[in-house]
Amino acid sequence: MSLVVVGSIALDTLETPLGRATDVLGGAASYFAIAASFFAPVRMVGIVGEDFPRHELDWFGSRGIDLAGVEVRPGRSLRWTGRYHEDMNMRDTLAFEANVFEAFAPELPEAYRDAPFVFLANIAPALQARVLEQMRAPRLVGADTMNLWIETTRDELHGLLRRVPLLMLNDEEARLLSGERNMVRAARRILALGPESVMIKRGEYGVLYFSGETVFAVPAYPLEEVFDPTGAGDSFAGGVMGYLARSGDLSPAGLRRAIVYGSVLASFAVEAFGLDRLRRLGRDEIERRYRQFVSLTAFEVP
Amino acid sequence: MSLVVVGSIALDTLETPLGRATDVLGGAASYFAIAASFFAPVRMVGIVGEDFPRHELDWFGSRGIDLAGVEVRPGRSLRWTGRYHEDMNMRDTLAFEANVFEAFAPELPEAYRDAPFVFLANIAPALQARVLEQMRAPRLVGADTMNLWIETTRDELHGLLRRVPLLMLNDEEARLLSGERNMVRAARRILALGPESVMIKRGEYGVLYFSGETVFAVPAYPLEEVFDPTGAGDSFAGGVMGYLARSGDLSPAGLRRAIVYGSVLASFAVEAFGLDRLRRLGRDEIERRYRQFVSLTAFEVP
Repeated sequence: MSLVVVGSIALDTLETPLGRATDVLGGAASYFAIAASFFAPVRMVGIVGEDFPRHELDWFGSRGIDLAGVEVRPGRSLRWTGRYHEDMNMRDTLAFEANVFEAFAPELPEAYRDAPFVFLANIAPALQARVLEQMRAPRLVGADTMNLWIETTRDELHGLLRRVPLLMLNDEEARLLSGERNMVRAARRILALGPESVMIKRGEYGVLYFSGETVFAVPAYPLEEVFDPTGAGDSFAGGVMGYLARSGDLSPAGLRRAIVYGSVLASFAVEAFGLDRLRRLGRDEIERRYRQFVSLTAFEVP
Repeated sequence: MSLVVVGSIALDTLETPLGRATDVLGGAASYFAIAASFFAPVRMVGIVGEDFPRHELDWFGSRGIDLAGVEVRPGRSLRWTGRYHEDMNMRDTLAFEANVFEAFAPELPEAYRDAPFVFLANIAPALQARVLEQMRAPRLVGADTMNLWIETTRDELHGLLRRVPLLMLNDEEARLLSGERNMVRAARRILALGPESVMIKRGEYGVLYFSGETVFAVPAYPLEEVFDPTGAGDSFAGGVMGYLARSGDLSPAGLRRAIVYGSVLASFAVEAFGLDRLRRLGRDEIERRYRQFVSLTAFEVP
């Protein structure tokens, strides 16, 4: 089943303790779409400038990603420059140029509006709502958000959350949104805002999933070398939503499997700069790492 | 099978964001012994002052803990005063009075020396070695350590680690001991020092276990309220070693079960001040929470 994603498509300049990369493909929608494309047909909604590399758009196309919803505008593409600390859980934004993204007013192609799955990646809640209004009857709506929107557009965000069954955010954002430091209480407060379930991303510590009285935890895959954490959360989301769109299985067991697939995609994403690892990732590697997650976590009842 | 533990037995004064407790039973060996006593007969080695509350010694006795190796000396017992931050992963030691502990020179009762399981809780490596030398042919030796010994007695610690098959320590200590920030590389370096396996305790993020090429991860049980993290790591160790001593099963699957039991005991330990939660813990609650760890972590292969 098809999956619509709306979000940023950017050119990133990244600096980590292990190296540097300039003007590489980035943005939440890019990571999400590539990760999800291993599972299901993706329909992308975004905006880029005329400077956006043709070969990257072609690459999206080659992955079966529909670009009818991606507007190419005169001007420069969104650019982000970030530097990671020695502790790669921390990063500073050195520069942010919205450029053409400033005028982003997502308009969905007619063919997108019946898609059963939609993911609202991290953009202003008003834009997320605008996309949601254009969808006819999605089976599952997922969304991400960030500190900026929690702090500056809380009312719009709360309005949106009443219509979003599945929220994904990181632990710091969960604390800010809920006003609770403890993750169990934070999740409970977030669920009270509307979502049926919430996935809290904790970087190298993995993911916590809360839904009703259910809690599910998946550790991050222990890697010897994390080259670049950029896009890990969006790759996770792409893996989750992509698997759900492929399987159509929204049962508790299906959601658990989707979260493991998301964790698999995130674990690959951080193994190289930008999207480099996902570029050369094979479906067989995904299945192999899924089984490694089994051996990482499995234990028996005595 | 019986299990010897050597370590501190203390009176703690604790301050957390949720309250305060004065001169309560504490010390690594106390938490360890009580946690392990749910599984196997424990033989304790330690030292207390004449001021040590009789009823606490009686309580140990009532839990089947052998106190023949606990010396009662003229003077005051070891005392520790700690204050936890709002983020309870952080704490400050406000006061430390070694008192009678300063003269601790563990001498094992004859009946202890054939015990098949021994745990060297966090004390000076020279004292840990002294205990090890008195054991005849233990099947499994586990040990803990801390920053102080890594920084001030590195040679003695390295000497000890060549004779310790199972090391347990927290992530910060693992980084300090290995000089590596990344946990996979840290574990590899630690295993190169001697231990066959290492369990890295990560507080609210759970535990990572490394042995050869095997990695096993267990999340911490998500609790709505952590009252007092004191003794969580020692309760974990007590659960692990206690279960191993009861089952005698040192297979990979047996070790995984032991780590889950350790996580279960740690999750209870933090639910109240000091040892209060373990005082009223029942064996049925342990089994119930073990099953909750299953539902917390279980997922299927598609």
